[in-house]
Amino acid sequence: MKRRRILALAGGVGGGKLARGLAAVLSPEELTLVVNTADDFVHLGLHICPDIDSVLYALADRNDPERGWGLAGESWNFMAAMERLGGETWFKLGDLDLATHILRSHELATGKTLSEVTALIAQRLGVTHPVLPMSDDPVRSIVETDEGALEFQDYFVRRQGKPVFHGVTFHGATQARTSAAFRKALDDADAVVVTPSNPFVSIDPILALPGVRGALRRRGRPVVAVSPIVGGDAIKGPLAKMLRERGVQPSASSVAQHYGPLIDGWIVDNADGNLVPAIETLGPRVRVCNTMMHALDDKRRLAQNVLEFVLELSAEQVS
Amino acid sequence: MKRRRILALAGGVGGGKLARGLAAVLSPEELTLVVNTADDFVHLGLHICPDIDSVLYALADRNDPERGWGLAGESWNFMAAMERLGGETWFKLGDLDLATHILRSHELATGKTLSEVTALIAQRLGVTHPVLPMSDDPVRSIVETDEGALEFQDYFVRRQGKPVFHGVTFHGATQARTSAAFRKALDDADAVVVTPSNPFVSIDPILALPGVRGALRRRGRPVVAVSPIVGGDAIKGPLAKMLRERGVQPSASSVAQHYGPLIDGWIVDNADGNLVPAIETLGPRVRVCNTMMHALDDKRRLAQNVLEFVLELSAEQVS
Repeated sequence: MKRRRILALAGGVGGGKLARGLAAVLSPEELTLVVNTADDFVHLGLHICPDIDSVLYALADRNDPERGWGLAGESWNFMAAMERLGGETWFKLGDLDLATHILRSHELATGKTLSEVTALIAQRLGVTHPVLPMSDDPVRSIVETDEGALEFQDYFVRRQGKPVFHGVTFHGATQARTSAAFRKALDDADAVVVTPSNPFVSIDPILALPGVRGALRRRGRPVVAVSPIVGGDAIKGPLAKMLRERGVQPSASSVAQHYGPLIDGWIVDNADGNLVPAIETLGPRVRVCNTMMHALDDKRRLAQNVLEFVLELSAEQVS
Repeated sequence: MKRRRILALAGGVGGGKLARGLAAVLSPEELTLVVNTADDFVHLGLHICPDIDSVLYALADRNDPERGWGLAGESWNFMAAMERLGGETWFKLGDLDLATHILRSHELATGKTLSEVTALIAQRLGVTHPVLPMSDDPVRSIVETDEGALEFQDYFVRRQGKPVFHGVTFHGATQARTSAAFRKALDDADAVVVTPSNPFVSIDPILALPGVRGALRRRGRPVVAVSPIVGGDAIKGPLAKMLRERGVQPSASSVAQHYGPLIDGWIVDNADGNLVPAIETLGPRVRVCNTMMHALDDKRRLAQNVLEFVLELSAEQVS
């Protein structure tokens, strides 16, 4: 198999899982991960990057698989002390996780870019595959709801995703520049993988940056995505609820429709094999496999499926 | 006994202990504590006030009596994670203590003064006696050593007080204003108590603020101090070493000499009863009692001794 250069776009949990699988089968030279930063926020003075941390912790095998976010073996003594002091506690900050936030905030304050700080933390976590923030400029997801416009963490964590979802805008996206390493990865990649993250709030912010959609289509290289909806529901998070509140039936098909012509290949779970004909009428080629990622073997197997599909589509696009 | 208004000047550990004793025998209307802030520093982006925290934790009965600083029941999971991330670990930040630093830093960043933030944290810790930073302006102890000028925490914690002490300067002190509540306490106090903290780096910074020395002498009200040296050594900290490196034999007498005419009454431990005649030739009246503060009863008894001495000296100054 010839050397492949894969650019993967990732949000948090689902992104971290497939990132771990891809990292198990591709070398650091073959895989670049670009991560959504539109969920980032400053909380209690700390610069918090939920999706970057999810991907880094997953790649370092330090993530907590049961909770789905944060570090394994976490403790909550800081949180209890903050509660006693009457401080804000709606966003959970573990004692171990705090080291990441404090180090990041401190390094950013010294003038480093988010790309530089992310590379530093990755290196110290022993992560060898490049993990890039989508931009060093601030982009913020603002969720439009029946209760008005809410910052993403306000909507997602503080209000537990309860307000009715109308849509999302990415403040700062049109002025933001893709990070330099992201631009290079866009130039160099032989294929693009869209991980099974929330399209509205994890993938769309990356696509909203100037030049990204064009670059993804430019060279005819395949863009392969894994459906975040399996059997009509999201594996984790508020996606199914968001789709329903937009008047769309949650399905592997409706998310394919959301991405539209961006996607050349769409991977759905075995549970959704019956949807293949309908999805293929929308445009993309469809591959069916087990997309559930529990153990590392599942992640590796799905990554292999993604890469085989990439090769198939590449061969077709060349021929 | 008539209502007394006591202003106590405090540094960290010794200051916190006597503060706890005074708070046990005086009401919040009768006692105001003014605390050194020249040890404060910004570390990993966090605004840390070691002496204010020592006094607050002592008054809240939350201090760790064995370690001598920080909170009882502390855990160190953040610190271990920071070490794994290769961050700075020379200054120990406990998981519980971090809540204080993060809340303070966050509140200061919103524009509150250090006095306001200290009052907020005190209230949330259940501390009812007023605890005032000496100033809302930055004052920093710079320690002159045989290795050059060092910031205080650099000298004291990172270098463990090992460099030879030549002296200390208080950067910013001449431009700093005493906090408004400190000025009011200086106006109102019937007596001033200097707690057994390090004179060079805990009490002298307070005395270095514009107007403080003059105000302490102004009304002829007694200033009573407790010797931080007992039997030729410091109860805790580098004071004895610092005195020796300045060419002075550490003793209850040499610290009285350091304070000079500022002090009307000097309290020494039973172990130093033999020094009374020598000290009285320097000027102050001397009282001998047990100054060791282990349990709350010891602190309360020493506070009672301080207050009796204050009354004695007040009566003499009036007559």
